[in-house]
Amino acid sequence: MTTPKQMQAIVYGGPGVKSLKSVPTPEILQPTDAVVKIVKTTICGTDLHILKGDVPAVTSGRILGHEGVGIVEEVGSAVSRFKKGDRVLISCVTSCGKCAYCKQQLFAHCEDGGWILGHLIDGTQAEYVRTPHADNSLYHVPKGVDEEALVMLSDILPTGFEIGVLYGAVKPGDTVAIIGSGPIGMAALLTAQFYSPARLVMVDVDDSRLAMAKKFGATDVINSAKSDAAAELMTMTKDGVDVVIEAVGIPETFDICQNVVRPGGHIANVGVHGTSVDLQLQELWIKNITLTTGLVNTNTTPMLMKTLESGKLKPAELITHRFPFSDFMRAYEVFSNASKEKALKIIVDNS
Amino acid sequence: MTTPKQMQAIVYGGPGVKSLKSVPTPEILQPTDAVVKIVKTTICGTDLHILKGDVPAVTSGRILGHEGVGIVEEVGSAVSRFKKGDRVLISCVTSCGKCAYCKQQLFAHCEDGGWILGHLIDGTQAEYVRTPHADNSLYHVPKGVDEEALVMLSDILPTGFEIGVLYGAVKPGDTVAIIGSGPIGMAALLTAQFYSPARLVMVDVDDSRLAMAKKFGATDVINSAKSDAAAELMTMTKDGVDVVIEAVGIPETFDICQNVVRPGGHIANVGVHGTSVDLQLQELWIKNITLTTGLVNTNTTPMLMKTLESGKLKPAELITHRFPFSDFMRAYEVFSNASKEKALKIIVDNS
Repeated sequence: MTTPKQMQAIVYGGPGVKSLKSVPTPEILQPTDAVVKIVKTTICGTDLHILKGDVPAVTSGRILGHEGVGIVEEVGSAVSRFKKGDRVLISCVTSCGKCAYCKQQLFAHCEDGGWILGHLIDGTQAEYVRTPHADNSLYHVPKGVDEEALVMLSDILPTGFEIGVLYGAVKPGDTVAIIGSGPIGMAALLTAQFYSPARLVMVDVDDSRLAMAKKFGATDVINSAKSDAAAELMTMTKDGVDVVIEAVGIPETFDICQNVVRPGGHIANVGVHGTSVDLQLQELWIKNITLTTGLVNTNTTPMLMKTLESGKLKPAELITHRFPFSDFMRAYEVFSNASKEKALKIIVDNS
Repeated sequence: MTTPKQMQAIVYGGPGVKSLKSVPTPEILQPTDAVVKIVKTTICGTDLHILKGDVPAVTSGRILGHEGVGIVEEVGSAVSRFKKGDRVLISCVTSCGKCAYCKQQLFAHCEDGGWILGHLIDGTQAEYVRTPHADNSLYHVPKGVDEEALVMLSDILPTGFEIGVLYGAVKPGDTVAIIGSGPIGMAALLTAQFYSPARLVMVDVDDSRLAMAKKFGATDVINSAKSDAAAELMTMTKDGVDVVIEAVGIPETFDICQNVVRPGGHIANVGVHGTSVDLQLQELWIKNITLTTGLVNTNTTPMLMKTLESGKLKPAELITHRFPFSDFMRAYEVFSNASKEKALKIIVDNS
């Protein structure tokens, strides 16, 4: 069976504009490339940011998407770990494996990669995608693993885990507060439990998401639209919160973090911020805090895959809606109204 | 020889007011206390902040000072590691050794200590000082060690080392920029060299301090009053600075740090800030940076003492002026005009 010359894809048309349309199927451009036929993909909050015009590097005509599972259709001559027919997880971060940043495990800042899919090159919301540096940016699907669950490993689980839980240095016995119960906050909630914190407090403005958070292991929830979350967190703890994970990206949620972190505690910022924040350094200079930021490196993808294989991690629980590929525009509509639709993660299926 | 009932001390009299006057000699109040006869002491930039009224917790009548070397005059019944006649270094941080913060090595946040000397209890700018939790807060003076040099280990060397160099995670080959060439910046400069960075760039507005910095091991210096320090640092490096140490405490110097830190780099804030800063999180969220703050824990004091004994660290070079105890007011005058007087650290001698 030969690869069709045209395919369907979600194409960005400038702020506020997207369409599902026919475009040329991608081809191998570099010996290190693969072309992957998409089996499952999803929509990320970042895609909505792009559609708002918040990410000006994304230009009109770009195919969106940076998450997915698929089947290798073709590989370049230098690809050694994958061959046609292999089932693969596509990482949201592309890495050459050779540059100074890759050697520091900072794959997010790879000099010939990083987050480029659906950003600087065409992405995964399509029937086929070209994945550069395939040997470093694809992962074999383990036998028997649920491929829908695996899509959560393209981005949200490593992001919540690496930039929230690991950068935040969650330890047994800690009180951890996660500000924001969207997919990334939930990913941090699930993976924080690897380290047995004593209390896991979820903060959000949406009661239905907080109810889901309780199901996923939150010991306490606070609706910050109904009460003063910082004051409640300070009442819960003696000196403040050990680790606060910011998973929203606005000054108000960052403020909760800086107001509740205990002396010696951590603020792990995962949220994508569009403006600066007023850092209360006149209070914090003396508090021995650590504040981290970051784009996911996906260096923990193989580790997370093992937790999924063993059943310790059950990311399929995050999936609330499923659509066939032909309904991609409807999937965007539902995901754009996540609160009303009680949507968390959506699977778009092309199998 | 009995301890005199009265002694001379520098007493804070409210913002802008200090005097050298006769006050009662301190006595043992708790079984864990020692009373130490001061041999050498100094003045810290923090004392000038207090005199400006920036530290309202310091009330009128308080004896200033949190640095010094002395001779144990008397110990409480529970003190087991020190006895009358022992020569001791007084740490600027008092720690009980028993609370949850002490067990985390966060002595700065000890529930019955922290920075209290010359702040919440009477300090070391006196002929005698009461030191609570003496077993955890004093150190024996090693044989043959220059006691003037040792005074630098009460505060500035552990502060520059722990909060600048260690929190900043300086590694061999790094480019390190230190913003501020005061005593703390110089302490960071001296101790950063333990880890063999490739470049050590000092930034200040005072050419004479920058000249001293070159003598102490800076590979490059930038006068930020004469040129755009951030632009120069970006020109020097490919992607930005690996570790930036903030040793001033104003928004302008913090801005240099956030503008030059490389992806995956560290900002170690050591400066005492009086206002908030505008953190450019819309740029930094994606950069995988680590920002740390802190008051010194003095957990590295024994380690630094060994580097001093071995001759690896030569903190006596930081001392520019010496005064007898009777000239304490003159010492303050010189230290308050540090730039004009070309002063860095001052020793006040009562031996």
